[in-house]
Amino acid sequence: MDQKGYRRESFQSATSDEDMLEIAGASMDFSMADDDPPLDREMGGFSSYNGGGMNGTSTMMDFLEEPLPGVGTYEDFNTIDWVREKSRDRDRHREITNRSKESTWALLHSVSDAFSGWLLMLLIGLLAGSLAGLIDISAHWMTDLKEGVCLAGFWFNHEHCCWKSNTTFTDRDKCPEWKSWSQLILGHGEGAFAYILNYFMYVIWALMFSLLAVLLVKGFAPYACGSGIPEIKTILSGFIIRGYLGKWTLVIKTITLVLAVSSGLSLGKEGPLVHVACCCGNILCHLFTKYRKNEAKRREVLSAAAAAGVSVAFGAPIGGVLFSLEEVSYYFPLKTLWRSFFAALVAAFTLRSINPFGNSRLVLFYVEFHMPWHLLELVPFILLGIFGGLWGAFFIRSNIAWCRRRKTTRLGKYPVLEVIVVTAITAVLAFPNEYTRMSTSELISELFNDCGILDSSKLCEYVNDFNSTKGDDLPDRAAGPGVYTAMWQLALALIMKVFITIFTFGMKVPSGLFIPSMAVGAIAGRLLGVAVEQLAFYHHDWAIFSGWCSQGADCITPGLYAMVGAAACLGGVTRMTVSLVVIMFELTGGLEYIVPLMAAAMTSKWVADAIGREGIYDAHIRLNGYPFLEAKEEFSHKTRAMDVMRPRKNDPPLTVITQDSMTVEDVETIITKTTYSGYPVVVSRASQRLVGFVLRRDLIISIENARKKQDGIVSTSVICFTDYCPPLPPSSPSVLKLRSILDLSPFTVTDETPMEIVVDIFRKLGLRQCLVTHNGKLLGIITKKDVLKHIAQMANQDPNSILFN
Amino acid sequence: MDQKGYRRESFQSATSDEDMLEIAGASMDFSMADDDPPLDREMGGFSSYNGGGMNGTSTMMDFLEEPLPGVGTYEDFNTIDWVREKSRDRDRHREITNRSKESTWALLHSVSDAFSGWLLMLLIGLLAGSLAGLIDISAHWMTDLKEGVCLAGFWFNHEHCCWKSNTTFTDRDKCPEWKSWSQLILGHGEGAFAYILNYFMYVIWALMFSLLAVLLVKGFAPYACGSGIPEIKTILSGFIIRGYLGKWTLVIKTITLVLAVSSGLSLGKEGPLVHVACCCGNILCHLFTKYRKNEAKRREVLSAAAAAGVSVAFGAPIGGVLFSLEEVSYYFPLKTLWRSFFAALVAAFTLRSINPFGNSRLVLFYVEFHMPWHLLELVPFILLGIFGGLWGAFFIRSNIAWCRRRKTTRLGKYPVLEVIVVTAITAVLAFPNEYTRMSTSELISELFNDCGILDSSKLCEYVNDFNSTKGDDLPDRAAGPGVYTAMWQLALALIMKVFITIFTFGMKVPSGLFIPSMAVGAIAGRLLGVAVEQLAFYHHDWAIFSGWCSQGADCITPGLYAMVGAAACLGGVTRMTVSLVVIMFELTGGLEYIVPLMAAAMTSKWVADAIGREGIYDAHIRLNGYPFLEAKEEFSHKTRAMDVMRPRKNDPPLTVITQDSMTVEDVETIITKTTYSGYPVVVSRASQRLVGFVLRRDLIISIENARKKQDGIVSTSVICFTDYCPPLPPSSPSVLKLRSILDLSPFTVTDETPMEIVVDIFRKLGLRQCLVTHNGKLLGIITKKDVLKHIAQMANQDPNSILFN
Repeated sequence: MDQKGYRRESFQSATSDEDMLEIAGASMDFSMADDDPPLDREMGGFSSYNGGGMNGTSTMMDFLEEPLPGVGTYEDFNTIDWVREKSRDRDRHREITNRSKESTWALLHSVSDAFSGWLLMLLIGLLAGSLAGLIDISAHWMTDLKEGVCLAGFWFNHEHCCWKSNTTFTDRDKCPEWKSWSQLILGHGEGAFAYILNYFMYVIWALMFSLLAVLLVKGFAPYACGSGIPEIKTILSGFIIRGYLGKWTLVIKTITLVLAVSSGLSLGKEGPLVHVACCCGNILCHLFTKYRKNEAKRREVLSAAAAAGVSVAFGAPIGGVLFSLEEVSYYFPLKTLWRSFFAALVAAFTLRSINPFGNSRLVLFYVEFHMPWHLLELVPFILLGIFGGLWGAFFIRSNIAWCRRRKTTRLGKYPVLEVIVVTAITAVLAFPNEYTRMSTSELISELFNDCGILDSSKLCEYVNDFNSTKGDDLPDRAAGPGVYTAMWQLALALIMKVFITIFTFGMKVPSGLFIPSMAVGAIAGRLLGVAVEQLAFYHHDWAIFSGWCSQGADCITPGLYAMVGAAACLGGVTRMTVSLVVIMFELTGGLEYIVPLMAAAMTSKWVADAIGREGIYDAHIRLNGYPFLEAKEEFSHKTRAMDVMRPRKNDPPLTVITQDSMTVEDVETIITKTTYSGYPVVVSRASQRLVGFVLRRDLIISIENARKKQDGIVSTSVICFTDYCPPLPPSSPSVLKLRSILDLSPFTVTDETPMEIVVDIFRKLGLRQCLVTHNGKLLGIITKKDVLKHIAQMANQDPNSILFN
Repeated sequence: MDQKGYRRESFQSATSDEDMLEIAGASMDFSMADDDPPLDREMGGFSSYNGGGMNGTSTMMDFLEEPLPGVGTYEDFNTIDWVREKSRDRDRHREITNRSKESTWALLHSVSDAFSGWLLMLLIGLLAGSLAGLIDISAHWMTDLKEGVCLAGFWFNHEHCCWKSNTTFTDRDKCPEWKSWSQLILGHGEGAFAYILNYFMYVIWALMFSLLAVLLVKGFAPYACGSGIPEIKTILSGFIIRGYLGKWTLVIKTITLVLAVSSGLSLGKEGPLVHVACCCGNILCHLFTKYRKNEAKRREVLSAAAAAGVSVAFGAPIGGVLFSLEEVSYYFPLKTLWRSFFAALVAAFTLRSINPFGNSRLVLFYVEFHMPWHLLELVPFILLGIFGGLWGAFFIRSNIAWCRRRKTTRLGKYPVLEVIVVTAITAVLAFPNEYTRMSTSELISELFNDCGILDSSKLCEYVNDFNSTKGDDLPDRAAGPGVYTAMWQLALALIMKVFITIFTFGMKVPSGLFIPSMAVGAIAGRLLGVAVEQLAFYHHDWAIFSGWCSQGADCITPGLYAMVGAAACLGGVTRMTVSLVVIMFELTGGLEYIVPLMAAAMTSKWVADAIGREGIYDAHIRLNGYPFLEAKEEFSHKTRAMDVMRPRKNDPPLTVITQDSMTVEDVETIITKTTYSGYPVVVSRASQRLVGFVLRRDLIISIENARKKQDGIVSTSVICFTDYCPPLPPSSPSVLKLRSILDLSPFTVTDETPMEIVVDIFRKLGLRQCLVTHNGKLLGIITKKDVLKHIAQMANQDPNSILFN
């Protein structure tokens, strides 16, 4: 059990990248988290593929009529070949289209095939929306359980409980049915002892929830921890992590997410919801052959599922699609854009019909501001942007340093203890402060809120002058004592959130980063907003306020500052741009406030990028050594293909197979002696002219099969990859023809090709490897891993940080 | 003058594609519409490029220290090479970054270089927003001029004129200052004679405006006609049309757009606004070397400008960005997405501060609905989607057939007459019908409008029962006589719009398609909406209405039907998906109505796609023979590279140059005898092993330069492309070393590569040509034009319809 929980750590402890996969493979146990049975596990840790794919089925007639089972799948922790996967899908599609002319049944099959994508999107939307609703409702209830219980029914949360009782509007949170723990146990809620009892119960519940969460994650689905977005980015770029999106991960992540959120830890449910939605997408893919069997098509579905995840997390379908496009997806054709949008909408409306917030609103934080902003306010907004950028950069550095320490020291060996300690500290610090005691999303809601005349919150305790009030428009007013208290409490909450979040993100529980980041920004923004408001109130005669902020005018909206601050901090941490602004815009629903949000997001990104280029997700990808080829960064060094290819100078020459002069024994020796996943085939050793590329796995299967089923194939049989094999003396054993498994169109570049172009080709075409030639002669090979190592080296990072193939 | 107006037709009359460019070049006059002086025009109609680009500056030291003038630019009507353009930009960027460490000045230069993109976006936003405001105001004024004039000042439009007079709310369009032409001339506005006079003046003004527009277009900027979106798509995909985005086009298009819209023709200003914004972008590029000199970087700016154009056209910045992404752009990196969004926002807010509609609203049609829709209403919405799809397919077919007829018959020789005739017919038919007399955008506004209690429009003449009214909520009511009259008039307007638009789009005036399409859909939608409303009113006891549409309830909103219909028809014509829904969503501002819009847009696209795959823009691209490689359609045939490459079977072998055995004379003979734009360089004629690729233009320049400046270079000098040239007998003339102009990393594929992969490579990497090899030996070459011809052939179209390189 323990061993599974440290799955990822075990990768890190291995240093040699050559035997990496063996180690990783050996330490893994797929029995629980497995989704696709790894059919070809017995074949060793190298990727396998149906070699006939590229030249289609027409030329593979020699002896392989149907691909053998296991062919065309990939080994765990390997990279897929996008070109070949897409080729296979086109072959499949072509076959269905051709057949559709033959019979009505085939036509129906063709139509249902075309619409299966839409059906899948519908199902993903429904499932993701329902799960999000379930998570919202449960987390709400369990968060309130820390403070008390409803006598009318223990399954009601605080708000729900008090709906039934006829209380006045201002006291709607206080009703006889809701009992705090002290009221329930002591019979009253007053006094120091009651306070201590409530405090104690709060901490105990928090510890129970987080303990349960970490035990479930550790015991049943180690992949359920974290936000999941770095891994999903990697998977979408074409990496295989079996079980990461499996059913066990889904079940455990859904349960532990509720527990983790309810425990009051400084984490959010938004990132993990993306993971949950992707699990739904992956599992539902199994209903359709088209998506089950093709890794590229499945990734299109996962991109759409990610959009649905963000859509339900924030109630922002357009923002969700843009998030998927901008942040997580790798290959995002326009068709997927349209389908993602559909899935995101279905998910959002499913969630709304479940109505977890009880207000028929789609969005997480509904805000309505009354006043437009003034151009001069851009100055504080940009200040918030700078704060957000600085915080983002600081957070990423500290969090990565802490996560690295966790990986490399003994600290990482006690994940349960770590979670318990962090929960205890969080709960103990949180309870005394009203603003940290409430759930973080409630806090953000309250900070975004524009003070109305009836608001009973401390933040709205202004000195009222009812004479100057006209309708809903409240003029700027002097802050009352409540506001000053709130300011102090918020400042303390800010300090606590800043530090505790660094230690929380990366623990062995599901943890999102959106909500804590937004909370930090919202607090800072509200503080600045109130400060500017009071400045404008007391000094409305200053030149900068003249004209737009005279006495008795409502000119500063502190809630808007909170919102801008939230956007700035979220931008600083994740480096999102358009999707960030669109998500925040969908929260407010008014184009009016898009400019302040944009100003803050731009400043924050610039400031944060100036300190460190990587967003938090990319930093975690690098920390974990995933083979992710970043599409946003330009490769700007002047190296050439010959500098990166294997073999390097002084290395032994490239292992090649000749097209018609090697025997079965020769080839078997090569297979045994080397561990490469494929071999180039050349005309002859002397000429080194490239003919094609053959995959190790295909060679093994074909030779084994031929030895069993074909007569006369012995160790001295010649293997021939050409169309017409050279005549042999009559005494020699029969020839093994293997043209069908030869990929006749391997990608090649010349040795002089600049690496920037090679990187571009790898990125845009999604290659696994590329051969290097010089004047038509084969020189070497570049794999995706070589490219990633080279990029790391050029950026002065450890090239051995890239761990997987 | 006449000749220029028929520039595009002259391409069509040529049939042989080999001498196509010569003909096109000869019939062109660049003096007016020219923007970039075509430096290399004298070099013949073939593209030219700085061959040293790919292997960087480090290896081009032989004799070309600085590239010669004209190197690195492209000839008109040719395709750019994206890989090389991007390489050049990276070289430039690398140089600036390296230098920035040397001095403060260089550091400042580097920073200003990094921010020049943002500055450019700001300028584009400001300029595009201002021009859009100018166009709106002028078109408004001139449209009203057809009906009358303001006595308080002739420069006021009708609405503006009546602001000053203190009239009641209901009669705000009738004020003493505004005189219709009959009132002005006859002194009264009643009676048949006054009506005829107004009618006459309306037609005369319309004819004057359209005559002026067509004469201006014909005389000064032939590229200013049409919507411009097909050409912008082609340009963004990497094609050069000089002057298409030049300053003359901008000036003339802005003026004639106002005239064309005011003339009452069935056209809109939205598409041409995209063209106007792209002209702004292109012209402003000239301020920054980074964008002026690099065709790839410039196209990034143009993508953003297109987003700004749609943003100001509809007041929908997010929709604009998605439109640019989905519909017009080819290469759209995420950096561009963020910048486009910035440009679109700046443009939208510039337009709002100009406030052309006088209501400080950003959007063209502001709508506010009060009632949610019911699930059962999806049935009529889907019906509207089917209508939209059918109309879209019908429109595209008829319009293309008519445009083809215009191109091929004598009809095309009289563009002025055509415009006059169509304007006359439109004006004569439009005046008697109130709904065609008003401007199309006003019509759409009125159709989208939800009837309030105070609305005086005929469409809102319901039988009022004030007893059942509560607040703003009007129950469904029986239609009054006004509504029935309006229905008849709308039905007639629908028929007229459907037919007249087919003949209008494609005339020699600026003409957009968004507004007419939306008008057709909005009329159909409103008709259906009122029908459903009356059905529900009179038969509220039917089972389908029970529960949600009881008597006295406000359950059907005909305005929503109009909006859904508009989306459906626009979708059917343009085949937009996400951007369409987002634009319509930004108009209403409520996520509530996104589902009906999505349902209609999806149905409409499916129906239209089932009839014909192409949207109107793609159909026009094909009609004009532009070399546009569609990124949305999958290539699904089983052909291979060897089937497409030149030379074909039985053709003479490929013209190649050997690396070290040909003399200057040999090469000059090849250049004279062939017209190819480049030649592969091989090791020797016998081996045919590929070394590199050399461009015709570079060869010509280098040989010419060497003959002039280098001693001992004569016709018998050997040209050597290798690093170390073979020793020659002492008597022979000195060797001409040309390694610097050799592209050492040409793209290659094997002859067995499936064409679907080749097409993918061309699309994703933006290649111009690709060499074909077999076992390391050079076999042939595939150019982008070959690919396009092959695609056309496979789709059973005339491969000679692809006209340009």
